[in-house]
Amino acid sequence: MSRPKSISGFPEWLPPQRMIEQRMIDHIRRTFELYGFAPLETRAVEPLDQLLRKGETSKEVYLLRRLQAAEGETDEDTLGLHFDLTVPFARFVLENAGKLHFPFRRYQIQKVWRGERPQEGRYREFLQADIDVVDRDELPFQYEAEMPLVLGDALGGLPLPPVLIHVNNRKVSEGFYRGIGLDDPQAALRAIDKLAKIGPGKVTELLAETAGASDAQAKACLRLAEISSPDASFADQIRALGVTDPLLDEGIDELVRVMEVAAAHSPGLCVADMKIARGLDYYTGTVYEGTLRGFERFGSVLAGGRYDNLASAGADRYPGVGISLGITRILGLLFGAGALTVSRSVPTAVLVALPSEERRAGCDRVAAALRGRGIATEVAPTAAKYGKQIRFAERRGIPFVWFPGAEGEADTVKDIRSGDQVEADPATWSPPAEDLRPAVTAAGG
Amino acid sequence: MSRPKSISGFPEWLPPQRMIEQRMIDHIRRTFELYGFAPLETRAVEPLDQLLRKGETSKEVYLLRRLQAAEGETDEDTLGLHFDLTVPFARFVLENAGKLHFPFRRYQIQKVWRGERPQEGRYREFLQADIDVVDRDELPFQYEAEMPLVLGDALGGLPLPPVLIHVNNRKVSEGFYRGIGLDDPQAALRAIDKLAKIGPGKVTELLAETAGASDAQAKACLRLAEISSPDASFADQIRALGVTDPLLDEGIDELVRVMEVAAAHSPGLCVADMKIARGLDYYTGTVYEGTLRGFERFGSVLAGGRYDNLASAGADRYPGVGISLGITRILGLLFGAGALTVSRSVPTAVLVALPSEERRAGCDRVAAALRGRGIATEVAPTAAKYGKQIRFAERRGIPFVWFPGAEGEADTVKDIRSGDQVEADPATWSPPAEDLRPAVTAAGG
Repeated sequence: MSRPKSISGFPEWLPPQRMIEQRMIDHIRRTFELYGFAPLETRAVEPLDQLLRKGETSKEVYLLRRLQAAEGETDEDTLGLHFDLTVPFARFVLENAGKLHFPFRRYQIQKVWRGERPQEGRYREFLQADIDVVDRDELPFQYEAEMPLVLGDALGGLPLPPVLIHVNNRKVSEGFYRGIGLDDPQAALRAIDKLAKIGPGKVTELLAETAGASDAQAKACLRLAEISSPDASFADQIRALGVTDPLLDEGIDELVRVMEVAAAHSPGLCVADMKIARGLDYYTGTVYEGTLRGFERFGSVLAGGRYDNLASAGADRYPGVGISLGITRILGLLFGAGALTVSRSVPTAVLVALPSEERRAGCDRVAAALRGRGIATEVAPTAAKYGKQIRFAERRGIPFVWFPGAEGEADTVKDIRSGDQVEADPATWSPPAEDLRPAVTAAGG
Repeated sequence: MSRPKSISGFPEWLPPQRMIEQRMIDHIRRTFELYGFAPLETRAVEPLDQLLRKGETSKEVYLLRRLQAAEGETDEDTLGLHFDLTVPFARFVLENAGKLHFPFRRYQIQKVWRGERPQEGRYREFLQADIDVVDRDELPFQYEAEMPLVLGDALGGLPLPPVLIHVNNRKVSEGFYRGIGLDDPQAALRAIDKLAKIGPGKVTELLAETAGASDAQAKACLRLAEISSPDASFADQIRALGVTDPLLDEGIDELVRVMEVAAAHSPGLCVADMKIARGLDYYTGTVYEGTLRGFERFGSVLAGGRYDNLASAGADRYPGVGISLGITRILGLLFGAGALTVSRSVPTAVLVALPSEERRAGCDRVAAALRGRGIATEVAPTAAKYGKQIRFAERRGIPFVWFPGAEGEADTVKDIRSGDQVEADPATWSPPAEDLRPAVTAAGG
């Protein structure tokens, strides 16, 4: 076999990085569960027709075919890898509605795949963590206020740069656009969504072309998009623009509530930001986009919003609200910046040194006793000189080496960082709590 | 959207089952880490040529193609979904050898995919948990004895039927076949591997056809296959057959050692079983196959062995030993038999009742205080009558409902199973430890 190569867009972490990723997933998952979100994992594939419901991303789908597909197998049942966790979740809710309790709160942490062109240097496989709440027929509004708090808590307990969640409400934008006389608020939304990418000049042109906006209307749209506030004061700024519309008022009230709840729970977590549009058509209320402080130029690491028509079949309607967090995206940014580090490359806290091959059974018993008390332990692979065995531990960052005593003598354990060595009994000795598991820290932190 | 359907071979668990699966994964992972295995996750795809190295499974591969593949994109770089975790691991080791410390112990818990024909009713997507140890050039033997102990500990701590690991050694079979004069021991192995499926009569025919075995030679092969023992006594039974061969002796010594180590650590976990052949050509030493007691007729739930040539490129050789555990397979069996149950369908331990919508902020503070102390908490979705709010908790199996006190009165918390209700402060009250998380138990156990 020739030496294999990495594949562009399919990142793989080395074990130390994977330990950091796992620690992150564990904390996120624990936070989601503290909020009562139940775990869900959907299959990796969906029928192609399900995937194509979101027309705009259809080009990014990976389709599957069996290497030895039988003659005459049709494309009718073509399967594709899911490109997000929202479409599979909506499908799962419709398929299993009779077995679920509503409101249904679930989280889902899974890989997704996008058939991006290789040359674009984007991820083609990446890990997402999603939470959603869906209800039957009607969704109580408070879940729109709860979403950012969950994500704030999930990320706040990790050694990451602080997250800032930009919040807007579709009703604000759409109501405002209607209030100034634009007939196609969706087209205006899509134009404003491009503001960061193409700038106000091009957006003005786009608003004229696609939404039929006059210069004055385009200017008003841009003035709305400029409004942001770390509190509920955005409402006065909007009202100062003198536009009235019932949907606009409703949106302002909702957004004020989201900002008040956030301020009570996590001051500084959210900013009301009228330029957040979210390209996807299916959002109908609050929308979210989060960035990491210091990494704003790399774009958002979480996004989501309120939707009403994603999960519906016939008369059944399951409105919902959700946020997707890009775990691979965050780690890619932070690993790239060297901003995260882990104290060792293995879970092992103790290496049991092997005095001679004959004494392996005794060393295995020491290891079993330590493991039985929750202390990750390995026995040295060979009865090499102790210096070599200590280097084995050092190279991996294993903090403690256990030396079995000679006949009639006590065992000792050595902290190979400090050189401290003490007598120890595997039935009672424990490492300091901070050495029990590998420690993940912000580099330099 | 029409009501979606499940896809044959792609199982999806409901949240209560997913909670059971997660508890199982958590315990397995924790055990692997206690033994010092480092986590690894490889990309879901491999280049087709890598996947085809194991010729026998090539027919089961799912290939990927981008829905909007550009004209002129060749099949040269065709990617397929991995069908096991061994091939990707071998590739990863070769690709990253310079960054790894050897012996390298890793575990990997991931989905794999096989493009089985839909009508066969087999899993096409399933979860595997693998451990492997690889070393550079030479692999110390003791890892072959350690493997079953890790799996025994991983499964032993869960409410599952006990696992029985059948162990053999390729050197025993091959040495024996050579010792009786068969020139193609691999062919004999493949024939014996079919014993359980096709019976001794057909195996005798197969041995004649494919391995050129005489009646006497076939009989000897079958007599070897009949030997099994829960201890090291299999060695005397083999020697009583009167066959001598150096490889056979080496294999017997190794298998005795595996059985002795297992007896010292986990009595009853392993059985030496000479009919275990494992179809795959790449095994060179100890081989394993494990079944759940009471579910033997469904076949093995774990399998693996020692290999010498799986990860090698040019002069670099990384011999290893590993076991794959079929998590989806085990859960499919046990869910099918109704053998596992979980105490509630959500992580939530406490539902905070909502006296009126005006008091939501106070209820949110109670919930935040409980969550801050590690107690999974939800606030009721609406200020319905308390009877309805209690039924909300009951339906989900949430054991406690928290009632915020009226102005100047203490809060109370009610165990809705017993009806016991006590005054409580969210800063100090905790549920009994057994109610903190959903409890997974053997049904009826």
